[in-house]
Amino acid sequence: MSPKLAAATVLRPRQDAGPAGRIARSAATAQGAHLAPGEFHAWFAQRRAAHPFRVDRIPFAELEGWSTQRDTGNLVHRSGRFFSVEGLAVSVDGGPDGWHQPVIRQPETGILGILVKEFDGVLHCLMQAKMEPGNPNLLQLSPTVQATRSNYTKVHRGADVKYIEYFTRPERGAVLADVLQSEHGSWFLHKHNRNVIVEATGDVPPDDDFRWLTLGQIAELLRLDNVVNMDARTVLSCVPRTAAQSEPAALHSDAELRSWLTEARARHDVHAERVPLAGLPGWARDDSSIHHLEGRYFEVVAASVQAGSREVTGWTQPLIRPRGRGVVAFLTRRINGVPHLLAHARTEGGLRGTVEIAPTVMYTPDNYADVAAADRPPFLDLALSADPARVRYEATHSEEGGRFLDAQSRYLVIEAEEGQAPLDAPEGYRWLTPGQLSLFVQQGHCVNVQARTLMACLDAIGYGTDG
Amino acid sequence: MSPKLAAATVLRPRQDAGPAGRIARSAATAQGAHLAPGEFHAWFAQRRAAHPFRVDRIPFAELEGWSTQRDTGNLVHRSGRFFSVEGLAVSVDGGPDGWHQPVIRQPETGILGILVKEFDGVLHCLMQAKMEPGNPNLLQLSPTVQATRSNYTKVHRGADVKYIEYFTRPERGAVLADVLQSEHGSWFLHKHNRNVIVEATGDVPPDDDFRWLTLGQIAELLRLDNVVNMDARTVLSCVPRTAAQSEPAALHSDAELRSWLTEARARHDVHAERVPLAGLPGWARDDSSIHHLEGRYFEVVAASVQAGSREVTGWTQPLIRPRGRGVVAFLTRRINGVPHLLAHARTEGGLRGTVEIAPTVMYTPDNYADVAAADRPPFLDLALSADPARVRYEATHSEEGGRFLDAQSRYLVIEAEEGQAPLDAPEGYRWLTPGQLSLFVQQGHCVNVQARTLMACLDAIGYGTDG
Repeated sequence: MSPKLAAATVLRPRQDAGPAGRIARSAATAQGAHLAPGEFHAWFAQRRAAHPFRVDRIPFAELEGWSTQRDTGNLVHRSGRFFSVEGLAVSVDGGPDGWHQPVIRQPETGILGILVKEFDGVLHCLMQAKMEPGNPNLLQLSPTVQATRSNYTKVHRGADVKYIEYFTRPERGAVLADVLQSEHGSWFLHKHNRNVIVEATGDVPPDDDFRWLTLGQIAELLRLDNVVNMDARTVLSCVPRTAAQSEPAALHSDAELRSWLTEARARHDVHAERVPLAGLPGWARDDSSIHHLEGRYFEVVAASVQAGSREVTGWTQPLIRPRGRGVVAFLTRRINGVPHLLAHARTEGGLRGTVEIAPTVMYTPDNYADVAAADRPPFLDLALSADPARVRYEATHSEEGGRFLDAQSRYLVIEAEEGQAPLDAPEGYRWLTPGQLSLFVQQGHCVNVQARTLMACLDAIGYGTDG
Repeated sequence: MSPKLAAATVLRPRQDAGPAGRIARSAATAQGAHLAPGEFHAWFAQRRAAHPFRVDRIPFAELEGWSTQRDTGNLVHRSGRFFSVEGLAVSVDGGPDGWHQPVIRQPETGILGILVKEFDGVLHCLMQAKMEPGNPNLLQLSPTVQATRSNYTKVHRGADVKYIEYFTRPERGAVLADVLQSEHGSWFLHKHNRNVIVEATGDVPPDDDFRWLTLGQIAELLRLDNVVNMDARTVLSCVPRTAAQSEPAALHSDAELRSWLTEARARHDVHAERVPLAGLPGWARDDSSIHHLEGRYFEVVAASVQAGSREVTGWTQPLIRPRGRGVVAFLTRRINGVPHLLAHARTEGGLRGTVEIAPTVMYTPDNYADVAAADRPPFLDLALSADPARVRYEATHSEEGGRFLDAQSRYLVIEAEEGQAPLDAPEGYRWLTPGQLSLFVQQGHCVNVQARTLMACLDAIGYGTDG
């Protein structure tokens, strides 16, 4: 119920130009009201010291609360909640191009939320210093709230999720963005989370693990390796864009790009079927890992966690540990002066829509080390050997540390030329503008999480606004 | 590959204002270039006479090519294609509010396509007179193309699908709309189809079963009972709207409405699990039907079909036959002069997104005949007893006749007032404008098929453009 409607009815503009303009101002503000330059790292180091935190690999037999289901071999939690590790059989057009893989099934919809508020006329984001067991450096900068349904409905039996009320009780603020986004379709089955940005209307109580930062301050941190976590990056990709960032003209119209994605989704019958983890073809299990027989892709492992700052003080859990570092890149070109990105319509077995818009390049090079040049994925070698002078953005980021152990990728934005990446793009690829990518992000379930990370990084370096 | 790009690069406007303006002109043109007033019905009667067509209920044992799977009791086709009838177990938040039902599983993505072309400066749609076994009057007006993947990849072993090349080979025309839309989440599991509108660039060969009609001519036919089929209605709901139809102000901003839908989708954990059709709780099977024990909802039946104008000349198939007629209605109000519709965020077990935007009312009254007033669905009685003076639109339409037997509903648009339908809408309901509904239709998988039918009807009666 919306109590505002009780009084005289006044229509409001359907598209509020306000937030986008204020977001641009926040992005341009490199000095926040609450944390002077240099103070961030001192605060972060202090948080790291305040919360002793230790992660150890353990055999599956030492998992507490988790067990291996007798009939399926699936890893499940005794509560029936959180998540399970199961098998997935993916088929394409009923033909031989399918595959089997372990997958994390987490059917709940969680909340990734950033609370924002104006200080001195500039929007600030309330960001959290949060430990997660899979992060290479454990502590990273996360959204205000990062909560599974189990978290905030107390299956965890731990402490309350701080600030959750701003996202579950909408009268506490004004919603700037609220959209369901997919996560890692190669590792999750049908996982998605609400990505929410709420502007607080009243005073917000302070907390030692949280600080208010402008978008400009966060942009600086996005240039560093492994500081801004995946959950923060995906929420940041959903901020409303300013009109200046939304180009009136592009190589393809919005309708053509929608049709391109629709056609890619309809072209193949991709079916992902849950199957028992036990006996999964191509995969083997020992005491402490479920791994691919040729050592590719990833392994499922178990870890014990000791921490002071999380909702509970210690636990054990399965994690997915990728083999090798990934490389994730958008190739870019200015077309008649307008920046464009080369997007890939990529199939992933765990995506609800089977195909989403992905970066140009998204591979683990180790998986292709012994593959002949002609059979290597398009543009991979270009990304691996890019002339540094053409690299517009480069940093290492890790994926969701609550589920993935040491899942690091080099994220790049690389300026290409016609000989490397023609405007007449190959089958499955299309040039689109950052504004068009943002349009798909606003819809939800159209842009994969790696492309959303690069979207946040593009915003952070002002790419698309300086042309 | 896009051969147009080979020449000098020229950016194009992201949003082409052209199609929307031309669509408005076509909608305003009640006299077509090819079929004078009155000629439509003569042509339609002639088509009906040209194709003798007969449908008979048969026992399941007389189905040809279909069989009952021994271990599951599912009804399947020997090709493994087309569709199957299986069991579905729906659970909500793991609690007792779940249910079991038969469901049609048809994992393929088909194409519903309307080919358009300008004659005398006015867009015309190429519409087909098509027989379908479940239609109460057998022959209805359908899109140019209405094809499952099995149809056009020849699993059917029948004739080619006419005009399919305009939709599978994009160089044959310009795409005006192309979006995946859900169908009947109460009867289908995860079914969706591409809804496509393509403008032909060259001459289009004529065919006796097809005629070019303006949107204005189709609008007249939408006022009649059971003439324009569901497939045509859903594609028509996807036409780009004119700027005049897209209101700048509304009761809720677009961002608020997106958040409303996102929250509704995230609030409950709705899980639909395929289970064997045999032994489905609450349902029984005899020789010729699978029916609900209390005679509610629908039954699964079998039919034999003899026809001359379809891709093959005769076949047998299962059909879903609803019990009773449905009533589907949008309540409307003018708020500060701007038309608004009362939308319902409705859960259906077979929807991929679990919740889509539905009309205010969408029920089979017979299912509630013996339900106490306090427990009847919101607004149902208002729709059943509406003052005729307040009914802005009313006609009976049937659902997809290829799968549903005699599935008729009374579609209504009813002007309401504050005492009947307050602006401060109940939980799960929100007022939105026709332009906002169209925005969600353009995204795909947000607006259910019944609401899309009413959207096409609203367009046909000019509702939302005359204020």
